[in-house]
Amino acid sequence: MPNTPPLSEFALIDAYFRPLTRGRPEALGLLDDAALLAPASGEQLVVTTDALVEGRHFLPDTNSQALGHKALAVNLSDLAAMAARPLAYTLALSLPDGAPHPEWLDGFSRGLGGLQDEVDVFLAGGDTVATPGPLSIVITAFGSLPNDRALTRNGASSGDDVYVSGTIGDGALGLLVARDQRAFAGPAGDLFLTDRYLRPTPRNALGQALAGVASACADVSDGLVADLGHICRASGLGATVDAGLVPLSGPAAEAIATDETLLTTAVTGGDDYELVFTAAAVRRAEIEALAQSADIPLTLIGAMSTEKGVRMRLPGGGELVANSGGYRHF
Amino acid sequence: MPNTPPLSEFALIDAYFRPLTRGRPEALGLLDDAALLAPASGEQLVVTTDALVEGRHFLPDTNSQALGHKALAVNLSDLAAMAARPLAYTLALSLPDGAPHPEWLDGFSRGLGGLQDEVDVFLAGGDTVATPGPLSIVITAFGSLPNDRALTRNGASSGDDVYVSGTIGDGALGLLVARDQRAFAGPAGDLFLTDRYLRPTPRNALGQALAGVASACADVSDGLVADLGHICRASGLGATVDAGLVPLSGPAAEAIATDETLLTTAVTGGDDYELVFTAAAVRRAEIEALAQSADIPLTLIGAMSTEKGVRMRLPGGGELVANSGGYRHF
Repeated sequence: MPNTPPLSEFALIDAYFRPLTRGRPEALGLLDDAALLAPASGEQLVVTTDALVEGRHFLPDTNSQALGHKALAVNLSDLAAMAARPLAYTLALSLPDGAPHPEWLDGFSRGLGGLQDEVDVFLAGGDTVATPGPLSIVITAFGSLPNDRALTRNGASSGDDVYVSGTIGDGALGLLVARDQRAFAGPAGDLFLTDRYLRPTPRNALGQALAGVASACADVSDGLVADLGHICRASGLGATVDAGLVPLSGPAAEAIATDETLLTTAVTGGDDYELVFTAAAVRRAEIEALAQSADIPLTLIGAMSTEKGVRMRLPGGGELVANSGGYRHF
Repeated sequence: MPNTPPLSEFALIDAYFRPLTRGRPEALGLLDDAALLAPASGEQLVVTTDALVEGRHFLPDTNSQALGHKALAVNLSDLAAMAARPLAYTLALSLPDGAPHPEWLDGFSRGLGGLQDEVDVFLAGGDTVATPGPLSIVITAFGSLPNDRALTRNGASSGDDVYVSGTIGDGALGLLVARDQRAFAGPAGDLFLTDRYLRPTPRNALGQALAGVASACADVSDGLVADLGHICRASGLGATVDAGLVPLSGPAAEAIATDETLLTTAVTGGDDYELVFTAAAVRRAEIEALAQSADIPLTLIGAMSTEKGVRMRLPGGGELVANSGGYRHF
């Protein structure tokens, strides 16, 4: 049952996707069903795949330029967590039946193109199909790194410091503004939050700088508690975090000051695309210097321990305890 | 809007997908959001992505084991067309809302596992999400080949022979049996056709053997006429093919003998996953020897020319002419 969107796949590739290859020979002009990639000698390739489904991973009618940015950003963020240098990506786009609007495609491809030029990656290949279901975007992103320099989730040791980059909770609060019309921090503050939700900044330079410094790393996509939980699970450890130390943006702090339950939203909500990582305590000065040179706050929020699960001490004295089955308050 | 299928993503990975990594360290136990791949020194990586949507690329309620096989096979077929040695794959699986049936997942993972062991590839990573839409499977497959040995679509020269492997039309006729309950060639013959449709055999060993022999190659997924058209388009040429020379299986020949319009179905219908390739005439003896040693028929069906488009001479004296806009009879 071959099927082509009303605007033929060829026309669509010509107009919107071939330009995103930036003429790189590896993409073979999108004329073949495959692309060629070669990491430099002594390097290995890092591969990551993320599926985004309308109504699940993004709101229906999300601005297509923001969506193009975000679909690529979440994959670049996975590369950042592994300390990989981004190289290229492929795109499998499932477009809902009916003519794809040229304006939608134009915005989407500009969203992809804007971020790919910031990070210096290119579209290497892909597939475009029509679907009776919702819009769905699967990006597979490729990065490279020197052999044995990958930053994985399983390297943490008991006693290691736990750090997080940037600020946490903006994504989750931004979703509440965008989806539920919540108002937290005035028009400018709320706009900041929705922008952080819609147009996250993958931390690729930081991730690469953390290779050889951090002991384990994950990006904050599912939520700080869940993603730190991934490190704990892979490392066979637990972590204790002080919620009062979790770095907040001005608008997020303003929101939480008026409704303290939003602190739980912030630390469990996801969509931050910051990095959470662990490092031996002897690395503190190095990490401070790294934060300075990268111009990104790196905040010490807790420590790894042998007791399984993630325990987050709340400012009021309570505790949020998470394990693989979710989290609860005590 | 993070979302997890009712059977948690972790449980699903543990039960069905981690075993498919076959313990390969590159997959990092599916504990990270990325995998590590390194082609051998002097080799480059070939990457291909195909999206399969239920009701579009496969029939609703297709047997899940056959579906697992086919989803991987169509990607391996793209690697075959590039002459790449298959290495690994990632899987982005969008499961319709509601509990995924363990039996379905078990069959699907066994279909993947059976073919991956035949070809010696492993699952390197992926993403599993729930969707309000139809079941959707996006596989990105990786292969490797020596630098500058890729078989692409753009290398054909005018005067080159056009060959096709195996038999053509079984996939399209098998779809008519499976979807429309057509009866063509008796129970055993019809079963052969549906099996060719449901469980195609990617021609990976053949594709690798064609490196340095063929001048251009594509796999027959969209249909012989369309895929030869892809070679023509990429090479800036046309082709003339004699439909009477197109190799047919016994059951397909039987079907066409009783209804000659099915010949058009066979050469335009797709889903064969054979290879169509071009080669200089001086290569004929070499290709004959290759067919012998690979034990796959390689049939000379026509020639490349400078006149654009694909012209297929029909046994009755008519001609099927195809260009990028489709095909018509003359």
